Amino acid sequence: MSLIFYYGSGSPYAWRVWLALEHKGIPYERKVLSFAEGDLKRPEFLAVNPRGKVPAVVDGDLKLYESAAIVEYLDDAYPECGKRLFPGSVRERALVRRLVREADSYFAPAVDRLVRLVQFTNEADWNLARIAATADELAGELDRWEREIHGDYLAGPASAADYTLYPMIALALRGEKRKPDLALRRRLPVRLEAWMQRIELLPFFPPTWPPHWQ
Amino acid sequence: MSLIFYYGSGSPYAWRVWLALEHKGIPYERKVLSFAEGDLKRPEFLAVNPRGKVPAVVDGDLKLYESAAIVEYLDDAYPECGKRLFPGSVRERALVRRLVREADSYFAPAVDRLVRLVQFTNEADWNLARIAATADELAGELDRWEREIHGDYLAGPASAADYTLYPMIALALRGEKRKPDLALRRRLPVRLEAWMQRIELLPFFPPTWPPHWQ
Repeated sequence: MSLIFYYGSGSPYAWRVWLALEHKGIPYERKVLSFAEGDLKRPEFLAVNPRGKVPAVVDGDLKLYESAAIVEYLDDAYPECGKRLFPGSVRERALVRRLVREADSYFAPAVDRLVRLVQFTNEADWNLARIAATADELAGELDRWEREIHGDYLAGPASAADYTLYPMIALALRGEKRKPDLALRRRLPVRLEAWMQRIELLPFFPPTWPPHWQ
Repeated sequence: MSLIFYYGSGSPYAWRVWLALEHKGIPYERKVLSFAEGDLKRPEFLAVNPRGKVPAVVDGDLKLYESAAIVEYLDDAYPECGKRLFPGSVRERALVRRLVREADSYFAPAVDRLVRLVQFTNEADWNLARIAATADELAGELDRWEREIHGDYLAGPASAADYTLYPMIALALRGEKRKPDLALRRRLPVRLEAWMQRIELLPFFPPTWPPHWQ
């Protein structure tokens, strides 16, 4: 029985695991849960992840959640499958892990705030000053990440760091569909934009685009 | 030249790395930075961690920050030193990493909020409803963690998971010095309290107690 991957469309954390599974070529069965229909709070799913969040995986008798822990597990448990998610030397792996952590600790909270302020708030109630401050914070992060491109991908070869950051940036940019003057895409530094395009050209990438964003 | 460890008293993230270094018996030189005196924003330190946060380490020509990435690095780079921080099988390591992530994703933000609301706010301006809600959220987390004790320590043998969670709980409990009726220590479940005592009895633990908490 292949690994079961619990997914929700639009979650940058679930997208990370999807990209990691594809990068390694691990066989999996993807189960799509609906946030709107409350699938994540049903007892069947709470038995997999008591916190009621995607992603989660079930691999044989192992139930695992927390996207970053899943990505480490996939690399550890499937050394024979395709490419490493934490490639290279001890020091190169330390770089990948530092980048994953920085994306989760700094980029993700700012995107989360942007989504709440813009997508989850009625336009009439928008707090324009807070939205602008959050967009500026994200633009500052984009400039930092521009300096963290150490080759074709963030840490040289494609790694867990790329699959962590890309979905977060895509989610931030999506805010412009609702509020075009966020001006995030315009402030995307040139090397970071080229890096995004390289990821988008990976053969396994296009089908992972969040279905409800099509 | 031994590894240089940049530390700040009271940071649960810096404390995590200190415990990890001691657990493994890695030789290190500890440099204490003062938050109050602005040491973290000086150019010398920003050259080590551009985000101006502790902990950070310098090991030969490697500069590394983000506590969880440092702890993984220590285990990877010093396999010959003492005990593993991510011990056991692939699945046991996945458990350790999931617990580390849960502590960072759920416990830490709630503690951070409590510290802002109680320690960093004048008593006259305390928002009692928000303080009580945050204390309740932390009490709920403590109950969850009670069910995550899989042996003497969180994941069986002592691991990165213990050194991640302990400093966060200690910081939360410290809030009672300023506001005794938070009632967090009283709501500490019995097995979790015994687990804290086991950590406090580790021979290397007592000197790591934050100096300014003495």
